[in-house]
Amino acid sequence: MTATLRDRGECALLEEIRRTVPAQGRVVLGPGDDAAVLAPSRHPLILTTDAMVEGVHFRRGWLTPRALGRRAFAVSVSDVAAMGGRPIAALLGVAARPDMPAAELREIVRGVRVGAGTVGAALAGGNLAAARELSLTVAVLGEAPWRPITRAGGHVGDQLFVTGDLGGAAFGLRLLAGARSIGRGASAVRRWQRPVPRLRAGAALARGKIASAMIDLSDGLLVDAARLCRASGVGARLCGDRLPLAPAVRRLPARGARALAFAGGEDYELLFAVPPARLDALAAVRRTLGCRVTHIGELVRSRGVRVVDARGRALALPRQTGHEHFASP
Amino acid sequence: MTATLRDRGECALLEEIRRTVPAQGRVVLGPGDDAAVLAPSRHPLILTTDAMVEGVHFRRGWLTPRALGRRAFAVSVSDVAAMGGRPIAALLGVAARPDMPAAELREIVRGVRVGAGTVGAALAGGNLAAARELSLTVAVLGEAPWRPITRAGGHVGDQLFVTGDLGGAAFGLRLLAGARSIGRGASAVRRWQRPVPRLRAGAALARGKIASAMIDLSDGLLVDAARLCRASGVGARLCGDRLPLAPAVRRLPARGARALAFAGGEDYELLFAVPPARLDALAAVRRTLGCRVTHIGELVRSRGVRVVDARGRALALPRQTGHEHFASP
Repeated sequence: MTATLRDRGECALLEEIRRTVPAQGRVVLGPGDDAAVLAPSRHPLILTTDAMVEGVHFRRGWLTPRALGRRAFAVSVSDVAAMGGRPIAALLGVAARPDMPAAELREIVRGVRVGAGTVGAALAGGNLAAARELSLTVAVLGEAPWRPITRAGGHVGDQLFVTGDLGGAAFGLRLLAGARSIGRGASAVRRWQRPVPRLRAGAALARGKIASAMIDLSDGLLVDAARLCRASGVGARLCGDRLPLAPAVRRLPARGARALAFAGGEDYELLFAVPPARLDALAAVRRTLGCRVTHIGELVRSRGVRVVDARGRALALPRQTGHEHFASP
Repeated sequence: MTATLRDRGECALLEEIRRTVPAQGRVVLGPGDDAAVLAPSRHPLILTTDAMVEGVHFRRGWLTPRALGRRAFAVSVSDVAAMGGRPIAALLGVAARPDMPAAELREIVRGVRVGAGTVGAALAGGNLAAARELSLTVAVLGEAPWRPITRAGGHVGDQLFVTGDLGGAAFGLRLLAGARSIGRGASAVRRWQRPVPRLRAGAALARGKIASAMIDLSDGLLVDAARLCRASGVGARLCGDRLPLAPAVRRLPARGARALAFAGGEDYELLFAVPPARLDALAAVRRTLGCRVTHIGELVRSRGVRVVDARGRALALPRQTGHEHFASP
C-alpha cells in the first residue's frame, strides 16, 4: 500500500525531506531548523516568488511530480534571470491534500532540488501545509553582481529582442488540456513541462550593460511587452513576421501560430531592449548567451504595442490576451 | 456592488497594490518589476517561509482580512526571531478565489505591510494566483548580525526559559472554533489573532551570546521542546507548575490549563536554553527583552521530554500532541 502524507505525518515527512536536502553551496544551515542561514553576499539582493496551483496552472496528469517541482522552481527563478541576477537559494512551500502519496511529495522536493542545483542554487528550506488542492509556492533569493535590469529603462529607438522561441509552451499546454493525441506536438508539450530559465543570457546582458530594459515572458509577448512599455513610458512596434516560432508551432497555419507566439504565454523567454549604441556589444556576446536571440521590433514614441508585417502594414492582433488568472472564462 | 478579484482582473489589482507598497527601507526596487531588489547586507542571511490555509489554519470569520495579513507575516517572521536574526523583507503569495472582494485583498496586503513595518522590514513583492481556497504564503528574508541560534546548540545542564505566556492562543482558537460566547476569553482570542514575534528578545539573546539553542513555539511546547532536544542530542525536564499561563487560561481548571500551555500551539513564544555560565548575562538583559521570561526547566541527559511538578514527581502529560497537519482527526 502507498503511504500518504497523513500516514507518514508532518513531522516525519519534514525530517525525511531534511535528510535528502543537505546544506550546500551558499547554504550554511539548510532545512530542519527554524530558518535557513546563508553565507553573506556582497551584492544587492533579489527576491521573487511565484506559485503553481492545481486546476489553475496545471493538472496532475500533465507532468510527473518531479517535473512539477522542477517547473515550479524554473518559473520562479525566471524572474531572477529577467533582472540579470544570479540565484542563490530557494524556499519551497507545498500545500497538499493529506491523501497525497508521500512518494509524490519526495519527488516534488527532488524536482525543486535538481532544478536549483542545475543553476548553482540550493533548496534552503520550505513549509508543508494541508490543503484541499495541491499548490507549490517557490520563493527565490538571488544576487545582482551587475546593475539589475528593470522593465523601466527602455528608450525610444531601443531595439527589441527575444531569447529562444515562442508559442511552444502554449501549444503544448493546449495539447495536454485537450487530451488529443499529442503526436508531433511532443516537443511543444516538453516545452511547457520544462521551461528553461534564461539565467545565462540575463546575466550576460546585465554584465555587459547591454539591455536597457528586460522582462520574462510569462503571460504572453503582447501582455509582457505592454508591461515593459508602460514601465518605460514608451510604446513598441513588433514585426509579426520575425517572431521565432517554436518548431511544433511553425507547422501550424500562420494565423494560429502567430496567436500562440503573441498571446500564448508561459514561454519564460526574455524580452529585452538594446540601445542602438549597444548593438555591437550584443553582437559580441551573442554566442555566449546559451540560446538564440531574435530581433523582433523596437521601442517607439506612441504608446501601446503595435504589430506590423515585413512591409510595415498593421497585422491583426490575436484576440486572446494572455493569461489572466481572475478573468471569466 | 462590491468588486471581486475577477471584476478587477489580475493586472489591475497588481498595479493597484504596487502603488500602495512603496519601496522603503532596504528595498531598492519594490513590487511591480520581475523581482524586488534590496540593498546588500554584510551579514549572513536568513530565509524562511510559512503558510496559512483557509479551513486548515483559520476560517474567514475569525479575523479581519487585515489581521489575517498581519498574522501571516508574524507567524513567518517568528522563525527569524527564533534564530536571533533581524528581518529585512517579506514576500507575500496569495492564492484566492476569484469571487473574493478586491477590498479584502487590499486589506490582507495592508496587514502584511503594517506587520512588516512594525519590525523594520518591508513588503518587497509577492504573487497572486487563483485557487479554490484562500491561502497566504509569506517568505521572509532576514540577516544575522550575530551568530544565529539554532535548535542544536543545547547541552546537558543548560536551563530552559520561555518568553511571554502560554496557552492563550490555543484557548482563543478553541473559543473561535467552538462559536461559543467568547466573553472573558476575549484576551485569548486576541492572543491567537495577533501573535507577537519576539524579535527583540531573540536578537538580544543572540547579540549577548546568551542562548545556546532556541526554537519558536508554533506546534506546542511539548512538540517544540522535543524538536530542540532531538537537534541538540539531549532530553528535557520541564516543571509543569512553572509554566507562565496566559491570563485567560489561568482561570481554567489546572489540568485543562496545563494541556493548553503544553500542547496547544500557536503561541509563537521563544523557548531557549541558557548555559549556567550565561545565566548572569541573561539576568543583565532581562529587562530589555520586551517581554517576561520564565525559567521552566533544564536540559538533561536522558532523551525525551519529561514533565514534573514542584516536588519533582512526574506529571501526567496531556494526550493532545500539538498541531499535526496531516494527522487524522
